[in-house]
Amino acid sequence: MAVAEPVRVGVVGLGTVGSGVVRLLVESADHIERHAGRPIVVARAAVKDLAKARSVEVPGGHLSADWRDVSRDPAISVAALLVGGLEPARTIMIDLLEHGKDVVTANKALLAEHGPELFELARRRGRSIAFEAAVAGGIPIVAAIGECLAANRIESIRGILNGTSNFIVTRMEEDGADYAHVLRLAQQKGYAEADPAMDVDGTDATQKLAILAHLAFGAWVPWAEIPRTGIDGLDLDLITYAGELGYRIRLVAVAGRSDGRLAMRVAPALVKRGTPLAETRGAYNAVSIVGDAVGRMFFHGLGAGQMPTASAVVADIIDTVVGRAAITFRTTGVLSADTPAARIAGVDMQERHFLRIRAQDRPGVLARITGILGEHGISIASMIQHDAGAADGTVPLVIMTHPCGSTAIRKALDHIDASDVVSGRSVCLSVLDE
Amino acid sequence: MAVAEPVRVGVVGLGTVGSGVVRLLVESADHIERHAGRPIVVARAAVKDLAKARSVEVPGGHLSADWRDVSRDPAISVAALLVGGLEPARTIMIDLLEHGKDVVTANKALLAEHGPELFELARRRGRSIAFEAAVAGGIPIVAAIGECLAANRIESIRGILNGTSNFIVTRMEEDGADYAHVLRLAQQKGYAEADPAMDVDGTDATQKLAILAHLAFGAWVPWAEIPRTGIDGLDLDLITYAGELGYRIRLVAVAGRSDGRLAMRVAPALVKRGTPLAETRGAYNAVSIVGDAVGRMFFHGLGAGQMPTASAVVADIIDTVVGRAAITFRTTGVLSADTPAARIAGVDMQERHFLRIRAQDRPGVLARITGILGEHGISIASMIQHDAGAADGTVPLVIMTHPCGSTAIRKALDHIDASDVVSGRSVCLSVLDE
Repeated sequence: MAVAEPVRVGVVGLGTVGSGVVRLLVESADHIERHAGRPIVVARAAVKDLAKARSVEVPGGHLSADWRDVSRDPAISVAALLVGGLEPARTIMIDLLEHGKDVVTANKALLAEHGPELFELARRRGRSIAFEAAVAGGIPIVAAIGECLAANRIESIRGILNGTSNFIVTRMEEDGADYAHVLRLAQQKGYAEADPAMDVDGTDATQKLAILAHLAFGAWVPWAEIPRTGIDGLDLDLITYAGELGYRIRLVAVAGRSDGRLAMRVAPALVKRGTPLAETRGAYNAVSIVGDAVGRMFFHGLGAGQMPTASAVVADIIDTVVGRAAITFRTTGVLSADTPAARIAGVDMQERHFLRIRAQDRPGVLARITGILGEHGISIASMIQHDAGAADGTVPLVIMTHPCGSTAIRKALDHIDASDVVSGRSVCLSVLDE
Repeated sequence: MAVAEPVRVGVVGLGTVGSGVVRLLVESADHIERHAGRPIVVARAAVKDLAKARSVEVPGGHLSADWRDVSRDPAISVAALLVGGLEPARTIMIDLLEHGKDVVTANKALLAEHGPELFELARRRGRSIAFEAAVAGGIPIVAAIGECLAANRIESIRGILNGTSNFIVTRMEEDGADYAHVLRLAQQKGYAEADPAMDVDGTDATQKLAILAHLAFGAWVPWAEIPRTGIDGLDLDLITYAGELGYRIRLVAVAGRSDGRLAMRVAPALVKRGTPLAETRGAYNAVSIVGDAVGRMFFHGLGAGQMPTASAVVADIIDTVVGRAAITFRTTGVLSADTPAARIAGVDMQERHFLRIRAQDRPGVLARITGILGEHGISIASMIQHDAGAADGTVPLVIMTHPCGSTAIRKALDHIDASDVVSGRSVCLSVLDE
């Protein structure tokens, strides 16, 4: 068999993921060549700081401090953009596309924020952007939705999309440790960054959900419009009470059709023990999708980390080299001019809810609280009043409701929280029974 | 946007899957057109018996009793071959390829038996064969291994690949019912065919494993050479004893590298409760794959049934129409002339084993049995001697071993079974702890 001309790839950014990508391309070169039908070589890598020590060596020492050396190298046809954040990532992506490179990226923030602009530019220039690694790391969920389940109308998506958050809630549950303690542990182990805000406040999961929902439902919802609650407000008591009821708390990203409209949110939810999402532990990610033909599909794997993410990036590089990425980019019409703008405000999901109310420990309080819930049409499925009162004279009241709308429950809780029978804000979490 | 010329698809076989494919192509036509970039229409369908009542109508009534009407229609470019078994399926596939059709099929027996010949013919004719639906129904495992995990060297595959078997073992476990009873139930519910042999004796799972292992490891192992045990030898006691030890019994297909060689088998195994494979119930399929970069990936979904299988067939039709299937078929080199013939005989897997021995209920017997195990270097991790003896004067002895080679355990059991202290054949199942 004649050896085909090698494809020259440029890598911008040699952080954790970038180093993993170079390592994989070098160490598995023969294996990758078999899948790509031709050799794939790292022709050049660009970094911010040439002096920094690195765990990986770029073949031939073609390391540069200026990413323009990648975009201006006419021999490079594919570029992996592995720089996080919005700038200079956006500027680099634009420059790469304008210089005729097909781009592969793992930067979900960039796509969630500037996707429409970047995809439109790629389309105009006849280039492709592949982004399997941007959502759920090594889990091939972008290909699954965009290609493998293409015959289905997707009905719903539920995902655990942030490994840091999942590591923290799992360890709180398993170790009985409080949030601050486990967050420090996660930072020591490298599962959480020094500034973990984007992970623990739900931003990262929400950006990934915006991308998945676009692939699944065709609509583009700016990520900042998606209701979002992180795990940073969780306390150990909530996890314990959920456990007593047979549930685990997970940060779940949800998107689904409801009355012909799109309902989306990212928030901690009670997930029934034994269901696949509930059994997703530690830094793993998971996605459950329901399609009208295929039924419920479930994917589970490492959602972050150097090599799982590099696995997805290199798969995209192979897809780009062989021409599949160009076809997919063109036919799925990701964020094309036809993309309908979606509105998700005011969409009501009918679900069971878990409430934790800090009630004053005196007669008549329970009647008052249940009365308010009844006035809003909310029916109680079960209730636990815990004996152990707090120093402020309150006792925790845990209520599971029958299915009710999110608007009704929110109004009822505002009413309860404004009354004189409770202390502090009540907590309300959705309950996912399957 | 200009409307592109429709692609005309032929469907051969309108059984359960074929009817589902036509239904999906008709009912989701607009949705599918968006993914394919052009309309896909069913131009003709061929069936064995025109007089038979059908649940689906072929558009325009282009129904024919001769599949040659599909292969000889020059306007048809893609054909879905949805006839089961080896003949006439093989003859039809050859004819379709020779008449220039790209083929999509769900027939795993055909590929496992005649794959090398058919793939070679397709390659020679410049056509593609897509077969996502042949393995694990709606789970996109062929794409996952062949494309999404292409950057990985696959280390192992474990799968629950036969829905009928899994339905039966799950119901035996959950209902405490015996094999024959549950098999009848499965037949009533349509989960098992009138002649369930290929499902319950492991043939179907083995054929699927041969296909997956080829995609993952590049080698082609004729399916009949893969060691295979079905669920038809299971009794309820085994499931009960496994449960007492914290395990569930599942029919697990296994392929992995061991000492640089390929180890493969299909057999009932004890799977630790709480692990994803153990929690795969009913007619669901599941596949767990370990790749060197991505780590452990897990996929779960409906592995059979009309619409899940149709979902995979139509995804393949879309892939073929847009051109992705041709690229994949070419670059992955499925069963090309370079495919190494694999030998798997005599490969030893080091695992824990579960033994059920019917021991004579008299002094010295336990010492004799444990002595024989010791002579073969097999170390016992735990043992339960059940009180309830059988009418033949034996008591069931359940032993969990420490990891040992399959050859050693087989020799030890042959030795034990040939002795005068036991009755009947002992049962030996592998134990999968993660």
